[in-house]
Amino acid sequence: MAAYVYAFADGSSDMRDILGGKGAELAEMTSIGLPVPDGFTVTTEACRAYLGAGGTWPEGLREQVSEHLAALEERCGGRRLGDPQDPLLVSVRSGAPISMPGMMDTILNLGLNPRSVEGLARSSGNERFAADSYRRFIQMYANVVLGVSSDLFEEAIAGAKQARGVKDDVELDTAALRDLAERFLAISRSETGREFPEDPREQLDGAVEAVFSSWNTPRARTYRRHEGISDDLGTAVNVMQMVFGNLGDDSATGVVFTRNPSTGERAPFGEFLPNAQGEDVVAGIRTPRPIAEMQRDLPQSYRELEEAMATLESHYRDLQDVEFTIERGRFYVLQTRAGKRTAQAAVRVARDLVSEGVIDQNEAVRRINAGQFDQLMHPAIDPAAEYDVLATGLNASPGAAVGRAVFDADTAEARGRAGEPVILVRWETTPDDIHGVIQAQGVLTAHGGMTSHAAVVARGMGKPCVCGVEALRIDAGARSFSVDGTVVSEGDEISIDGSRGHVISGAVPLVPPQMTDDFAAVTTWADEARRLGVRANADTPEDARRAREFGAQGIGLCRTEHMFFGDERLPVMREMILARDEEGRRAALDRLLPFQQSDFEGILAAMDGDPVTIRLLDPPLHEFLPDLEDVDPSDERLRSRIKALREVNPMLGTRGCRLGLLHPEIYEMQVRAIVRAALTVDGSKAEVMHPLVAFATELQRLRDLTERVIEEEGGGDLGILIGTMVEVPRAALLADRIAPYADFMSFGTNDLTQTTLAFSRDDAEGKFLTQYLEDDVLSRNPFETLDDGVRALIERAVERARGVKPDIKLGICGEHGGDPDSVEFCNAVGLDYVSCSPFRVPTARLAAAQAELAQR
Amino acid sequence: MAAYVYAFADGSSDMRDILGGKGAELAEMTSIGLPVPDGFTVTTEACRAYLGAGGTWPEGLREQVSEHLAALEERCGGRRLGDPQDPLLVSVRSGAPISMPGMMDTILNLGLNPRSVEGLARSSGNERFAADSYRRFIQMYANVVLGVSSDLFEEAIAGAKQARGVKDDVELDTAALRDLAERFLAISRSETGREFPEDPREQLDGAVEAVFSSWNTPRARTYRRHEGISDDLGTAVNVMQMVFGNLGDDSATGVVFTRNPSTGERAPFGEFLPNAQGEDVVAGIRTPRPIAEMQRDLPQSYRELEEAMATLESHYRDLQDVEFTIERGRFYVLQTRAGKRTAQAAVRVARDLVSEGVIDQNEAVRRINAGQFDQLMHPAIDPAAEYDVLATGLNASPGAAVGRAVFDADTAEARGRAGEPVILVRWETTPDDIHGVIQAQGVLTAHGGMTSHAAVVARGMGKPCVCGVEALRIDAGARSFSVDGTVVSEGDEISIDGSRGHVISGAVPLVPPQMTDDFAAVTTWADEARRLGVRANADTPEDARRAREFGAQGIGLCRTEHMFFGDERLPVMREMILARDEEGRRAALDRLLPFQQSDFEGILAAMDGDPVTIRLLDPPLHEFLPDLEDVDPSDERLRSRIKALREVNPMLGTRGCRLGLLHPEIYEMQVRAIVRAALTVDGSKAEVMHPLVAFATELQRLRDLTERVIEEEGGGDLGILIGTMVEVPRAALLADRIAPYADFMSFGTNDLTQTTLAFSRDDAEGKFLTQYLEDDVLSRNPFETLDDGVRALIERAVERARGVKPDIKLGICGEHGGDPDSVEFCNAVGLDYVSCSPFRVPTARLAAAQAELAQR
Repeated sequence: MAAYVYAFADGSSDMRDILGGKGAELAEMTSIGLPVPDGFTVTTEACRAYLGAGGTWPEGLREQVSEHLAALEERCGGRRLGDPQDPLLVSVRSGAPISMPGMMDTILNLGLNPRSVEGLARSSGNERFAADSYRRFIQMYANVVLGVSSDLFEEAIAGAKQARGVKDDVELDTAALRDLAERFLAISRSETGREFPEDPREQLDGAVEAVFSSWNTPRARTYRRHEGISDDLGTAVNVMQMVFGNLGDDSATGVVFTRNPSTGERAPFGEFLPNAQGEDVVAGIRTPRPIAEMQRDLPQSYRELEEAMATLESHYRDLQDVEFTIERGRFYVLQTRAGKRTAQAAVRVARDLVSEGVIDQNEAVRRINAGQFDQLMHPAIDPAAEYDVLATGLNASPGAAVGRAVFDADTAEARGRAGEPVILVRWETTPDDIHGVIQAQGVLTAHGGMTSHAAVVARGMGKPCVCGVEALRIDAGARSFSVDGTVVSEGDEISIDGSRGHVISGAVPLVPPQMTDDFAAVTTWADEARRLGVRANADTPEDARRAREFGAQGIGLCRTEHMFFGDERLPVMREMILARDEEGRRAALDRLLPFQQSDFEGILAAMDGDPVTIRLLDPPLHEFLPDLEDVDPSDERLRSRIKALREVNPMLGTRGCRLGLLHPEIYEMQVRAIVRAALTVDGSKAEVMHPLVAFATELQRLRDLTERVIEEEGGGDLGILIGTMVEVPRAALLADRIAPYADFMSFGTNDLTQTTLAFSRDDAEGKFLTQYLEDDVLSRNPFETLDDGVRALIERAVERARGVKPDIKLGICGEHGGDPDSVEFCNAVGLDYVSCSPFRVPTARLAAAQAELAQR
Repeated sequence: MAAYVYAFADGSSDMRDILGGKGAELAEMTSIGLPVPDGFTVTTEACRAYLGAGGTWPEGLREQVSEHLAALEERCGGRRLGDPQDPLLVSVRSGAPISMPGMMDTILNLGLNPRSVEGLARSSGNERFAADSYRRFIQMYANVVLGVSSDLFEEAIAGAKQARGVKDDVELDTAALRDLAERFLAISRSETGREFPEDPREQLDGAVEAVFSSWNTPRARTYRRHEGISDDLGTAVNVMQMVFGNLGDDSATGVVFTRNPSTGERAPFGEFLPNAQGEDVVAGIRTPRPIAEMQRDLPQSYRELEEAMATLESHYRDLQDVEFTIERGRFYVLQTRAGKRTAQAAVRVARDLVSEGVIDQNEAVRRINAGQFDQLMHPAIDPAAEYDVLATGLNASPGAAVGRAVFDADTAEARGRAGEPVILVRWETTPDDIHGVIQAQGVLTAHGGMTSHAAVVARGMGKPCVCGVEALRIDAGARSFSVDGTVVSEGDEISIDGSRGHVISGAVPLVPPQMTDDFAAVTTWADEARRLGVRANADTPEDARRAREFGAQGIGLCRTEHMFFGDERLPVMREMILARDEEGRRAALDRLLPFQQSDFEGILAAMDGDPVTIRLLDPPLHEFLPDLEDVDPSDERLRSRIKALREVNPMLGTRGCRLGLLHPEIYEMQVRAIVRAALTVDGSKAEVMHPLVAFATELQRLRDLTERVIEEEGGGDLGILIGTMVEVPRAALLADRIAPYADFMSFGTNDLTQTTLAFSRDDAEGKFLTQYLEDDVLSRNPFETLDDGVRALIERAVERARGVKPDIKLGICGEHGGDPDSVEFCNAVGLDYVSCSPFRVPTARLAAAQAELAQR
């Protein structure tokens, strides 16, 4: 029979898969001698068995829980769970193999009933504490396990306070709390139609089941989908002896990061609340005090905390996120885990750990979450901007954001999805707000500290967040907030600066991100480890320069369509399209040539000798003509041309190399401009890329054209490479036929995804694709992470192209080039480079290194 | 060194690849003792070497020609080529490995010059004949080899006739012909800037080169593209002793088919012209006489012809197309080849040959050109129609056609391509008209007989043709023709009945084709030989019945979208689309259900127990709404729904199973209608097909939905199969993931071609695809014959699907299911069935049998 239960003393860090992250670390900490409350863990395997059987306990689980409970009672000096005399109380918490903060439900003070509450009063010598613990337990259990709405309990508390004329929970006396407990039991009875369970073991079993079931709540599923976590893992259940931070002023509870998770600075970072239970801190209900003050108020415990932090960092060799409780001066560590951190902190911590000799540079590279790396690329407020700060709060997650204020998660989701930048403004956020946070540019809360839900989640997602802005007066009903008389209503623009904790009314100008020294150091280490080249997609000299700053080794995709727009150019382009014959088209093209040449010169110069892959004109010609509705009805010539060029499915129409073959004069002009520019810019490396090739003959003819023009322009010695984009399934399927005419092939994964899946991006996103993601038909957006079908095509193409031309240069250009999971695939399949948007270049560099290190 | 030249006596039938069809058969006939003029053949290998070297004679070729020429002179009684005394004259003709009638150039009477023409006059005793031969030779050689426009010679002839006051060439006397030869030489000299070659060997070499080069003329390329013949074969050159059919009334030339190539009847069929050269017959310049009259006029020669035909048929075991010449009573066979025939004749001949014990039934099946089989499916004039016959000509190629009269090939091509049915009307057609014939519905000529160019080509293409309508007065300048005062202008509708030789003014009603007994017999033999099942694509009971008549074994694709149209249905469908909620949609769907159920009952009943694969709704919903322009501006609701449903690329949008997942109530209704219909029709076999599946989860969920509805309707015992269409590349690439949820998979090759090639059919045909075919970027239309990329996908899908589910049923539905080349692929790749339009079912049955026989 499977071992479904492990005592903390019997587990270890490497049993994460079955004990969950929290359980494995509780076991690990126990084994390295840290003061962890005693307990045991029910495995994820038990959870899977339970859920798989439709909510039935697997054989043997109940007995194993009994055995471990008995042993725990033994180790806790013989105190029995819920014993009327000196009761052992336990907490029951979830713990999945992958950290999912706030996603799962927790029960505290389990074991209390009308008899054991008296025992607790006696053993703690604190009747009010016992009564408060009991009403908390009933409230929590009834809500989480029995499904009773928490509003009913809040109303009862409000009623009790009103009846007694007090404002704060802490002002309620023992008698009031006892009444409240009775009232809570009555609420539970009337809502569930049965008595609240008094038997401690029945309580425990119910809590375990509730944790199991909470694996499948919508909010847990949403989080997993967003983070790409499998639904099959299941969660473990940790049953731990209760220790109390709320037994008076020599008790406390707190959360501390061993280093600053926002900046990476090497100093404890966290908060504590005297005379409180841990949930009070995490939920952001009371604003806690900075950890530094604990040194003054609880000096002995602070020293123990420092020791524990040192032990944990040296054991785990990483920044730790530690929960602790002090019960009447006795210090306990309740939990540790690798601390969630901003990318900025991640690079600083990694770099410092290397300096400190704790890890090597490859380990530093491995450690950083490449998916999170993008957040370093968040914009900041333009240093030159002048603005008034409306209010200041905690700088909970760095970066600046501008958007319209919205006051609930649903609105944030709806408007955010529609493409509107929004800032979610809340008293505090809860796990139920996740879907709104995902769509918001940033988060602003009135309550909560640096470790509140909003702060943790925003940092994890790399979104700017300002927390605990006490001056904020939110009127949720009116959908507005005010600060000192200034009213901001839903839809008004605001700005937040998560690096400084500033809230600003109106939109401030932002500037692009800069690379810090830490960042530069870590990406340099990544460069030493990676095999894949990293290029950027850039169309202008400015983008090209930025790409180089971020470490791009060339331009993998320089689109040329924008070179046909602009006040001076578009009219000429239209002349070309409207010309009656080739002669007319050539005349117009001759006038466009100097513009393009100068554009190319700028880009080639900016890249200073690094290769620049220039894609010839791709979009259908109708994109350059005005909408029919905007044309003078008497302009029959233009109207009929617009009608003639209309397409039912422009994505699959006359574009790309099809244009180049139908109107060779266009591509001739572009190649001519490229060669002339390359001749002008010393040491430049231009590459000509023909889009949308599906047939070898297409590329063969365009190669002939390109070579001829290079020859005509005297560019024979420039070493200009000629290649193609692979963005049509046929080209990938029969890459061995096309490769002979290509010096390089670049997978255009945006269009390749559209054609392989028959997904028009314009028609899918916000429509059926969004629905597919919500309904779990798809687990990931194929336009963000390469789809398996597209991967299969790339695999086949690589194999076939290399089969006939082993040294052909292969890469991808498309948004997937900056997606870590896709980069890993590109590395494994043997591509030579990836190309992505300039801001994702650092991510791609890191991901490429991680892929290579993982493969070694 | 390669042997580049073979004497006729040294070759044989199986050397087609190097001797070409004509050369191989001349050799074969020589070896079986038929009276063939002596000669030799220059191989296709020599042609390839010559063309490959850019027009340089390969080493040794010149010497080999010299040796074989000397040997030929020896065998011809020592007469030397172009000898001044008793000259040997030769013809030089092309002959490719695959018959290409009219495509290549021919030179007759080679060896004549100012001296040898005197010798010819002496040896023939006919000065006029000699002079005429000489001027013909100069005219032909100057035109074909030296590139002088034939118009100049025609003008000179016209001038000579005018000067002498005669109307016909034959009225020109010897002196006139001699003058004409001098005039021709002067024309050649002034056009080419050099003397016309007098040296017989120089003439020969020039003619050989001209034949080689004619392989690459545009018209030859056009023909090859249309027929799918490779450009790499090259042509052989046949050099043959001249024999003359124009040496008086005991001389003649003719063409005869051993059986009737139009009907297949077992009787010689052909024409002869007394005192004429062969070119006169083929070019249709003089209208020849029926072969039967030769029995009366040249009885001895006719007996020899009968003997030769019997020998040829028993040797080749097939209908032969024989050219012969009688020179002063001496009978020669000049050429034989398998006779081009109508499909009607092909099946009759094949069936007769089996009855005669000459071939077995598999050989009969193998013999018939499956690509040509479609022509049996040509419509005929409705027997009930009343109409007046305007004129009668030869019934040169069967079937009836209706279209607008056009008078030149370019117009025929342009209007035909634009989708307009046209009839090409010409005095006679020439190889330069091919592109027009291809696009025309039928051909009508005033001149030419049953073996004229128009007749041969039309029969080959299966197009109706009426030839030699002497009453036709064509005014090419005015673009009209008249018959007895009735004038038909360009663009006027006419009808032709190629089975009866009738020309009718205006459009007559046509009826669909019927299967003849011969046809039924041959397809039954095909059924015995084939492995592949053949189904039809049919959406109505009427189509279903027709499909069964043509031998379909089921319906492979029954589209259901038309079931939402119609006066009673469309308003309800629109109600459904405009409904505010699911309830509203369901209410509308409930009203559509009885319609669909009765449609399904009709189809299931018509198929009488054969399987019917029903595809659920596929097109996007906007197809059921009116155009925005047609909507009342005040109907904001409808307008906004139309706008919301608009798609940029509807082909890749919300359609197929995406609709079924977004609005499950639609598919539920359809499945319900199918189950109810299946329960009503005894023994029916319905199959439910889900379109556009790309992901396994899509099909998994739709399978669940389908099974649930079947269960709800009590259809559990009906054995309804559930499957999917594979029309998205991803589904083919990862077929192993989808197969577990599919009882069958049907490749929807129309859409699969569109997505794999990124070719929107709506935007490609008539636009870039047409241009690609013209410019040889593509050799075949991928919407007619399966593209290699699509084939690669199907191959992979079959392998992967069978890998996880060996007994899965696999088929294709799409127009390719009726294309012989594609059917061959489907057989080879191991599909279970093909499904095509009802009229192509017989073709598919035959092609499937041929594929299987070829594979054995």
